[in-house]
Amino acid sequence: MATPSTALLKDELDIVIPTIRNLDFLEMWRPFFQPYHLIIVQDGDPTKTIKVPEGFDYELYNRNDINRILGPKASCISFKDSACRCFGYMVSKKKYIYTIDDDCFVAKNPSGADINALEQHIKNLLTPSTPFFFNTLYDPFREGADYVRGYPFSLREGVPTAVSHGLWLNIPDYDAPTQLVKPLERNTRYVDAVLTIPKGTLFPMCGMNLAFDRDLIGPAMYFGLMGDGQPIGRYDDMWAGWCVKVICDHLGLGVKTGLPYIYHSKASNPFVNLKKEYKGIFWQEEIIPFFQQINLPKECTTVQKCYVEIAKMVKEKLAKIDPYFDKLADAMVTWIEAWDELNPAATGKA
Amino acid sequence: MATPSTALLKDELDIVIPTIRNLDFLEMWRPFFQPYHLIIVQDGDPTKTIKVPEGFDYELYNRNDINRILGPKASCISFKDSACRCFGYMVSKKKYIYTIDDDCFVAKNPSGADINALEQHIKNLLTPSTPFFFNTLYDPFREGADYVRGYPFSLREGVPTAVSHGLWLNIPDYDAPTQLVKPLERNTRYVDAVLTIPKGTLFPMCGMNLAFDRDLIGPAMYFGLMGDGQPIGRYDDMWAGWCVKVICDHLGLGVKTGLPYIYHSKASNPFVNLKKEYKGIFWQEEIIPFFQQINLPKECTTVQKCYVEIAKMVKEKLAKIDPYFDKLADAMVTWIEAWDELNPAATGKA
Repeated sequence: MATPSTALLKDELDIVIPTIRNLDFLEMWRPFFQPYHLIIVQDGDPTKTIKVPEGFDYELYNRNDINRILGPKASCISFKDSACRCFGYMVSKKKYIYTIDDDCFVAKNPSGADINALEQHIKNLLTPSTPFFFNTLYDPFREGADYVRGYPFSLREGVPTAVSHGLWLNIPDYDAPTQLVKPLERNTRYVDAVLTIPKGTLFPMCGMNLAFDRDLIGPAMYFGLMGDGQPIGRYDDMWAGWCVKVICDHLGLGVKTGLPYIYHSKASNPFVNLKKEYKGIFWQEEIIPFFQQINLPKECTTVQKCYVEIAKMVKEKLAKIDPYFDKLADAMVTWIEAWDELNPAATGKA
Repeated sequence: MATPSTALLKDELDIVIPTIRNLDFLEMWRPFFQPYHLIIVQDGDPTKTIKVPEGFDYELYNRNDINRILGPKASCISFKDSACRCFGYMVSKKKYIYTIDDDCFVAKNPSGADINALEQHIKNLLTPSTPFFFNTLYDPFREGADYVRGYPFSLREGVPTAVSHGLWLNIPDYDAPTQLVKPLERNTRYVDAVLTIPKGTLFPMCGMNLAFDRDLIGPAMYFGLMGDGQPIGRYDDMWAGWCVKVICDHLGLGVKTGLPYIYHSKASNPFVNLKKEYKGIFWQEEIIPFFQQINLPKECTTVQKCYVEIAKMVKEKLAKIDPYFDKLADAMVTWIEAWDELNPAATGKA
């Protein structure tokens, strides 16, 4: 197994993982993750203990910790759902976050070498994005690539990258209906590309293999109200993705997708997923046009201000779909209040 | 060398090639191109004869032919520039066009097999595009891929694909400044992806390896006024790309980019290129924002109507940059008139 030569951004990046059910998970990632600090957010019964193998530097939060730290504001953090991971984004003190699911293992590139996913995410985050014009050779900041003929020179500086969205080999991230229809489909196509999702275009952000710049976009990475007591699941990362993309577009920040791949080991149960998802399948038909038409006012100069503004719009325009959105809009505001309490220096930062 | 098992769309596709200077070109492509009809448009001295190898079904047009067929309207076709190829799009009677430069050879995929570029273009054109929402596993219509979780079901039908933009291994399509700065850069990265360029996003369309649906977008594929007597070169395909993308977005048509690759054998002279390009390098800084803000009126229900409307806008808003744009706007209208004369059945088609 390849060992990374250097741990890039060792003191500037936290790895946030929801409950680890699979002990092989950390062993497999040890050569890549051990230099970093881990934040584990346990999503279920707080009396159960997660055994973290020797040698890892970590902090672990269970529901009791969340309640203790946030008090009544803990209501904004999902219970019994991996959406609770966003609590880890809030308590981190680092500039960068990498979050990964415990059924995601180290993938191999076409040459058979282990992929250092974290290293690729860091490269993606440390190089600019190009949201205003499409570059047909993809990320012009990768080695051996550049802007092609016809790319305006005034746009070649790019913009800061806020999000690096990685992909999955083996089990693709399909919804329940697609899982049911194509139970045997596996993703075997290694697409050697990173690209900026253009301004004005929304995408389905998956939380399985995701890195972001907490200083640039952290307060928008709220994974919503899912799981226990909520009418919907499996839309935590989608919700965050819609909010994040709209805010990045408004603030002139970039979102990249593509490399790195992880190996997604097992498909979740499609019947369980269908139950969690089915309202989302209806709702997204209205939610997505809602996000597509959002036009944030100029006064929204920080992520927090943008986010609270979106919360208002959710209350106004989505609560008519279901009372859930009224509750979600309140939770979005609570989340920002809690974020600012735990991150006082960053409050109101432009 | 692999021989394609079937010549897909044999009777529905023309291959349009500007002057062939390199006799190896057609020999190399013989297994792939021989089943198709070729339209060769000679860009220079009409007294010179292009020798086409035995066995190809072709028609050849030189400047005298263009003048004879179009009469005074021949003024809209560039002279001594490969931009004249668009005359071939106009005289074709087929539904699909593939156009390729004579310095583009058959590329190899990572397994070492010859790439049948035409076959991939046809696949791209015959499957829908997805311009309204980004699919993180790229083209959901490719084998082994689909829409990912969170992709709205109402958008999964896609829209008809009007353009398939292929890429280039070896010599990348760089502008003169980049060529000068990176004389040794070669594109060796085979990115196994096809993707739809999202609605509202412009891209630099390269004419080296390009296929399109003539019925859907043909009249917008005008390569402008370049070469002899014009202040600019190497922006023929870019101009077409900006117009095409804006019209596709307006009419709900898709533009794909990515596979297939061809092998671009030699870089053109960067000093000559700089001379041709340098005004374009300035002008594109104003032209691109101009195209980005175009909002075509609802009454523009055909490509022709859209194109004439854009010509009006060019006259109004770009002629202040340089008198060239006044002339270009007139040529755009002439082009549409000539197109409709040669394609009477298609005139005014919705």
